[in-house]
Amino acid sequence: MAQKYVYFFGDGRADGHATMKNLLGGKGANLAEMSRLGIPVPPGFTLSTESCTHYMRTGGKYPRGLKSEVEQTLARVEKLMGRTFGDPSNPLLFSVRSGARVSMPGMMETVLNIGLTEKTLPGLVARSGNERFAYDAYRRLIMMFSDVVLEKAAGIEPKGGVGIRQQLEHEMGKMKKARGIKDDTGLDAEDLKKLCALFRQKVKNVLKVDFPEDAREQLWMAVGAVFRSWMGKRAVSYRRIEGIPDGWGTAVNVQTMVFGNMGEHSATGVAFTRNPATGENNFYGEFLVNAQGEDVVAGTRTPQAINETSKTEASKHLPSLERLMPQLYRQLMGVRNRLEKHYRDMQDLEFTIEHGTLYILQTRVGKRNGVAAVKMAVDMCRQRLISREEALLRVGPHQLDELLHPMIDPKAERKADLLATGLPAGPGGASGQIVFTPEQAETWARAGKKVILVRTETSAEDVAGMHAAEAILTATGGMTSHAALVARGWGKCCIVGCGALNIQGAKKRLHVDGRILKEGDWITLNGTTGSVYAGALPLIAVDPERNRAYTDLMKWADGVRRLGVRTNADRPEDATTARRLGAEGIGLCRTEHMFFGPGRITAVREMILADTEDGRRRALKKLLPLHRRDFAGIFRAMAGLPVTVRTLDPPLHEFLPQDEAAQRELARDLGLPLKHVRTKIEALHEANPMMGHRGCRLGVAFPEITHMQAQAIMEAACRLVKGGVKVYPEIMIPLVGTKEELENQRKVVVDAAEAVIEKTGVRVNYSVGTMIEIPRAALIADDIAEVAEFFSFGTNDLTQMTFGYSRDDVGKFLHDYIVKGILPDDPFQSLDQAGVGQLVELGIKKGRRTRPNLKVGICGEHGGDPASVEFCHRAGMNYVSCSPFRVPIARLAAAQAVVKEMKQPKRR
Amino acid sequence: MAQKYVYFFGDGRADGHATMKNLLGGKGANLAEMSRLGIPVPPGFTLSTESCTHYMRTGGKYPRGLKSEVEQTLARVEKLMGRTFGDPSNPLLFSVRSGARVSMPGMMETVLNIGLTEKTLPGLVARSGNERFAYDAYRRLIMMFSDVVLEKAAGIEPKGGVGIRQQLEHEMGKMKKARGIKDDTGLDAEDLKKLCALFRQKVKNVLKVDFPEDAREQLWMAVGAVFRSWMGKRAVSYRRIEGIPDGWGTAVNVQTMVFGNMGEHSATGVAFTRNPATGENNFYGEFLVNAQGEDVVAGTRTPQAINETSKTEASKHLPSLERLMPQLYRQLMGVRNRLEKHYRDMQDLEFTIEHGTLYILQTRVGKRNGVAAVKMAVDMCRQRLISREEALLRVGPHQLDELLHPMIDPKAERKADLLATGLPAGPGGASGQIVFTPEQAETWARAGKKVILVRTETSAEDVAGMHAAEAILTATGGMTSHAALVARGWGKCCIVGCGALNIQGAKKRLHVDGRILKEGDWITLNGTTGSVYAGALPLIAVDPERNRAYTDLMKWADGVRRLGVRTNADRPEDATTARRLGAEGIGLCRTEHMFFGPGRITAVREMILADTEDGRRRALKKLLPLHRRDFAGIFRAMAGLPVTVRTLDPPLHEFLPQDEAAQRELARDLGLPLKHVRTKIEALHEANPMMGHRGCRLGVAFPEITHMQAQAIMEAACRLVKGGVKVYPEIMIPLVGTKEELENQRKVVVDAAEAVIEKTGVRVNYSVGTMIEIPRAALIADDIAEVAEFFSFGTNDLTQMTFGYSRDDVGKFLHDYIVKGILPDDPFQSLDQAGVGQLVELGIKKGRRTRPNLKVGICGEHGGDPASVEFCHRAGMNYVSCSPFRVPIARLAAAQAVVKEMKQPKRR
Repeated sequence: MAQKYVYFFGDGRADGHATMKNLLGGKGANLAEMSRLGIPVPPGFTLSTESCTHYMRTGGKYPRGLKSEVEQTLARVEKLMGRTFGDPSNPLLFSVRSGARVSMPGMMETVLNIGLTEKTLPGLVARSGNERFAYDAYRRLIMMFSDVVLEKAAGIEPKGGVGIRQQLEHEMGKMKKARGIKDDTGLDAEDLKKLCALFRQKVKNVLKVDFPEDAREQLWMAVGAVFRSWMGKRAVSYRRIEGIPDGWGTAVNVQTMVFGNMGEHSATGVAFTRNPATGENNFYGEFLVNAQGEDVVAGTRTPQAINETSKTEASKHLPSLERLMPQLYRQLMGVRNRLEKHYRDMQDLEFTIEHGTLYILQTRVGKRNGVAAVKMAVDMCRQRLISREEALLRVGPHQLDELLHPMIDPKAERKADLLATGLPAGPGGASGQIVFTPEQAETWARAGKKVILVRTETSAEDVAGMHAAEAILTATGGMTSHAALVARGWGKCCIVGCGALNIQGAKKRLHVDGRILKEGDWITLNGTTGSVYAGALPLIAVDPERNRAYTDLMKWADGVRRLGVRTNADRPEDATTARRLGAEGIGLCRTEHMFFGPGRITAVREMILADTEDGRRRALKKLLPLHRRDFAGIFRAMAGLPVTVRTLDPPLHEFLPQDEAAQRELARDLGLPLKHVRTKIEALHEANPMMGHRGCRLGVAFPEITHMQAQAIMEAACRLVKGGVKVYPEIMIPLVGTKEELENQRKVVVDAAEAVIEKTGVRVNYSVGTMIEIPRAALIADDIAEVAEFFSFGTNDLTQMTFGYSRDDVGKFLHDYIVKGILPDDPFQSLDQAGVGQLVELGIKKGRRTRPNLKVGICGEHGGDPASVEFCHRAGMNYVSCSPFRVPIARLAAAQAVVKEMKQPKRR
Repeated sequence: MAQKYVYFFGDGRADGHATMKNLLGGKGANLAEMSRLGIPVPPGFTLSTESCTHYMRTGGKYPRGLKSEVEQTLARVEKLMGRTFGDPSNPLLFSVRSGARVSMPGMMETVLNIGLTEKTLPGLVARSGNERFAYDAYRRLIMMFSDVVLEKAAGIEPKGGVGIRQQLEHEMGKMKKARGIKDDTGLDAEDLKKLCALFRQKVKNVLKVDFPEDAREQLWMAVGAVFRSWMGKRAVSYRRIEGIPDGWGTAVNVQTMVFGNMGEHSATGVAFTRNPATGENNFYGEFLVNAQGEDVVAGTRTPQAINETSKTEASKHLPSLERLMPQLYRQLMGVRNRLEKHYRDMQDLEFTIEHGTLYILQTRVGKRNGVAAVKMAVDMCRQRLISREEALLRVGPHQLDELLHPMIDPKAERKADLLATGLPAGPGGASGQIVFTPEQAETWARAGKKVILVRTETSAEDVAGMHAAEAILTATGGMTSHAALVARGWGKCCIVGCGALNIQGAKKRLHVDGRILKEGDWITLNGTTGSVYAGALPLIAVDPERNRAYTDLMKWADGVRRLGVRTNADRPEDATTARRLGAEGIGLCRTEHMFFGPGRITAVREMILADTEDGRRRALKKLLPLHRRDFAGIFRAMAGLPVTVRTLDPPLHEFLPQDEAAQRELARDLGLPLKHVRTKIEALHEANPMMGHRGCRLGVAFPEITHMQAQAIMEAACRLVKGGVKVYPEIMIPLVGTKEELENQRKVVVDAAEAVIEKTGVRVNYSVGTMIEIPRAALIADDIAEVAEFFSFGTNDLTQMTFGYSRDDVGKFLHDYIVKGILPDDPFQSLDQAGVGQLVELGIKKGRRTRPNLKVGICGEHGGDPASVEFCHRAGMNYVSCSPFRVPIARLAAAQAVVKEMKQPKRR
């Protein structure tokens, strides 16, 4: 039998079902599933992703047999609908939509009203009894088809940057102006008839092609355009960000057109089976009477709520569907219940009412923000819809970010300068400088600026800039607008539909409430309330402990996970925050921060500039009591939990001033000749400081530094222990590459520690271990473990050395590498499991071969990255350590790692 | 049975034998062996190295039972000699000497005449019938013992830097002056008697101890001093250079004293069974009548030759031993023959004639220079003394350096300004700046200067400075002086005994032939003839092909080795040289050198400063014909052999001027604003350029550069192939860390290459491969091998990344690391097999898993390091590639690797 490429759905039957997403795409699989469930789906068929990959592989050829399969299935749809595709008297019309395995909202093409031609128009007029409606449909087809199929997909460069769509819109604008009307709806059937003729002429003039007037030609051209849009620039860029492979391809859904714009008994809308912003178990949605789906998404008309609980500030005065069409609402509610029970997750569905008949056009798992995700997961588990393990998997660890997101300091917010209010589309607070274009957002963000992207509305072209911005603010659009959908997916602060804004992007300014704001001006958004403020307001952390669903979920996570979660913290305040967020100790306390600050840096510089060990010892003596106090603060904050302290790591030149004025001042302060200071600074200069004289290499050269640090740690610990505080110091030597380095430094530490213990008479149990951050350390971990009592993988440096990338310089090509597909993503954010991961696994295996109970952790940035945490779990680490706000993320990711492992068949 | 620590030898018997070097040290083992062979060895015993390691381990305690073992063995010696240790009437005297597994000449202590006290002196006077001799022996004992045992070994700091020895010498000088005599020999018995009393008083005053007057006390103090000298500063420093473990310890040889200074029928000398400078099969040696061994080594008297063939310019007028004592010479000749036949290698022996009786005090394998080593190995093989495999192992690969050593250009030498002539103690030519102290030699050499160490004589304290110098020149000393021995061991250019020099080290100047030379002045030495010239003369390479023994040995090596040997060469001249030295292709042709030079650098800079691809292409077009010509030259020089060309590697900023004047000029040349040039230079700045935008990362960003290079390579190749020249280009992509990078660059290369092939109609077989120099590349070598047709390990960068050492900065701590024993040696010189080597082995294994016939080579500095070459052989590489003059070294090392493998039991 030949390979099957075309899958029918409709009338309670379907060739496919929900689990066939790889083949049919998410949309196609769900259409098939809904059809099987008896949900009213307009019939149609799906061209599988394999037809797309074949099309790409062969440079634009359809698989053999595809056309005849389509013809057979098409005939089945025709029979079901009692209409015929291309039939002048009673034409069947189709929508042609993309549909990949995972949703890529707005990234690929859609064409509606396929099959409408000069010949079939009269048939549609007859069936609808509405000439205006029919010509409006034709107008829409020409606009969409010329843009998407004839121009974009054909790769025709728009003249002067203005595409065919803009030119057609311009014609339509001219006509509206001439007729003195404002809305499209003001145009009557005759206007539209003329406009269609004008459009066809314009298409021919501009694109040098006749608009296709054959139904089948339209269909195949549209299918090809959708396939090609898979490799379109926008789609490729989106996949890079989301990490979706190019090889998947998209399916194409060809579905009978139903019209929400056939009059006052028609409508169209989108709905979520639960509230996607709060997670509450309320049916939530918006709709427009006499409209097509694109009108809802575009945000040009204010949508009405489907029920009372969905009403917002903007829609509270408009009648809901529940009131307007109660029977249809009940029917929709029935669909909602069926879908949620069947899919056991919140669904995002599109519906259309044509002449009083309800159709469901699409269902998919609904995007939700972090707060909602947590609430739904916990609620559904309590409802016994899902198990506890499933609940844990339902929340993306990064979504917790939103619960932990900074919010505007309420004290500051009360007195703040309110500019306007919009719809709260993405939670938390954000402040940044205004930019008006996504390009500017990217450029400034790359330069380290915090920006807020302010747009009238956003479109799929803007995603990269939206990603780069701290927050998004739009003048139009509702909670299901493009900006809202995208921001929700990313958990980014976002306000939409802020109508008070008059944005003049070309002039790089906006008017609001009689004031003018320019590019670069600071604003602050409260994405939880929809308030927009002038200036940069202070942000504060929120306390997720008050969120019951969150605390429940985290309790479940802690019950499941086996990986410990510690934090990287250098100050008592950070330690306290992390502890509140669930940290079980400190995995990395960097001591270099203790060298800066008043009363310290001068002593540090004195030490560096000293030419003798005696001179260094004198300067270090000044640092000792300060250092000791720092450690005491941290130990107290982490009482009862282990604290890993890393000895001095950065090269000494980082502590010396580089500008002349400061050098002069330093020379004066220390009573040294300026020349001496300069000579020393020059002598400390390195060609590649990242691979230079730092880490334990410093400690080997200047053991007195390590000694002072160990002494300060142990004096602080012994005093606290004497006072009844439980302290577990773990002293960690950085940048070790040979066993001998660690032996050398361990001896210095132990000598200092034992002297303190003897002097104070308090025995504190301390251990001495090492960072594994040099590739060689991982390779000879068996040797190193003879000396090290614990390992902590420093995957920042390990990534640098393993790739040979300088973290300070990689920006020059990293972005280009990701765009070109040379790297799947930034290896400094998500651990490179294929390369760096091998060294980690090898290091653990060899380390434990020598010391079976070796405690192993990770303290690089990766400790808070969910994929990396899962890797650390699989690799058999004891704990991960991450920045305080990532602690909950790591806890959940660690639990998910266990759940995923349970679901997997045991690996050998 | 208790452990045995003491091993007797003498009278044709011995407890030990030659293979027990680990236990008895080289000297002790050979004394035992000679004794067994019936060679006249003064009887004695050896304290094993285990007694030393016990002594070190316990902080200075002798093993239990050692003393009674010594007493028993001592009694056996006493019986044999018919004298008694400490007996006033007929005292037995001993020498106490160190003796490690391998010779560490002069690094540890020796004490002679042990057992001589005020009480036993009369006995020695009676036996020798020579009061003066006996008091002279006592005087020597006091000087040596106070220095070595009482002061140095006791760790007493000399007052004002002047040690006891100098103070005693000063006393002796005063007495000579008072008596108006010049030589020590002028002092009579009464003088010496007084001097001894004076010495003993001085010792008591200065060191606050009585000189020990008990024979056994002297013996045990001397043994302890020798043990402690194993950990002395000089010995430790020497072991670091030579890579000898501290844990070995030294043995101590206690041997009956025989005296070469008992009158005109006594003598002492050193001899080599063959000429250690030329390798000729002639017995070679020097001796002094009525002298002790130290007199020969010190070089204060001109030694006489033992036979006619040993005569030198200095000794030609003095009678030889052959003439003076023909019977004893014949006896010595017999010993020589017996030893060489027995040991099957050239021996270096010490002999003493006491009252007409010949004693052999020591034999060991003689040090030899490279020329001699080659000749002896080949000769002995032809004599069937050793096998061909043994012959190959007899030459240290680095010794070949001497045969390939530069020599002074004869044309320049004929017209050169001859300052003086000395003894030719180390071959080849060298020029450098004069330094008068070993410390200065080290300092200047570390600063990159070429220095020649000029000393009156050298001593063991000077070794580090001698090592740092290009060459050594001494005013005194013979061919067996300290300087000559050490230089010979290292194959360093050296002239000794250059009596015309009057060196005033304190004034940092020397007088010679009425002229004054100061520190920093340039001189040139011809170590093969002994000529010293003023100024820096040009050096040229020698042609080893004229040396028959060398060509034979290399032929044998080529017959045995399986590893290919290529060269790293960027210019046709270098390629030709390397080919002459046996290179079988080019393993690394760096193309960046082709970017410098007239007519190029401006175009290169123009390319870098261009802001568009078009601009870059225009500049590259100018480089193309020059590049093509370069490649043609190299391909022609290597006709018939493969040539690996690496695409551009260094970061672009290396090609731009850093000083303002040059930047201004560049801006003018290119007609660009200075600001533009500066901005670009700033933009290209990197924090860690070694890990920055270089290698294939450049090629990915600017494919047009790779394209131009590939085009130039292939155009050159196609033209030559058309002309009948065989060309095998291998195009190598540097710094690859992901498979995708290589795919990207491979495509650019293949596109360019195929275009050239199509255009020229000549199909040249080319291949595209990669450097493995990033740790990640080794880790994912299986992936990379899907694209790479060959691998070449770039172990310079791989070492940098694996250790996290910047090669430019590692100097700041590398020396300290080696001194502290953290690193065994410089990993940039000898491959770190434990760490970097793992990545190499893994890379090969994984690469060949994907592509079983993958060709693998190495092109880092390590390709010419013998230990690394052996590693590459074991790791299964196809070839090593090294600088031209290291090609013969690599060939021999590769052969030795095979021979060693044959000798080893098969590894699993």
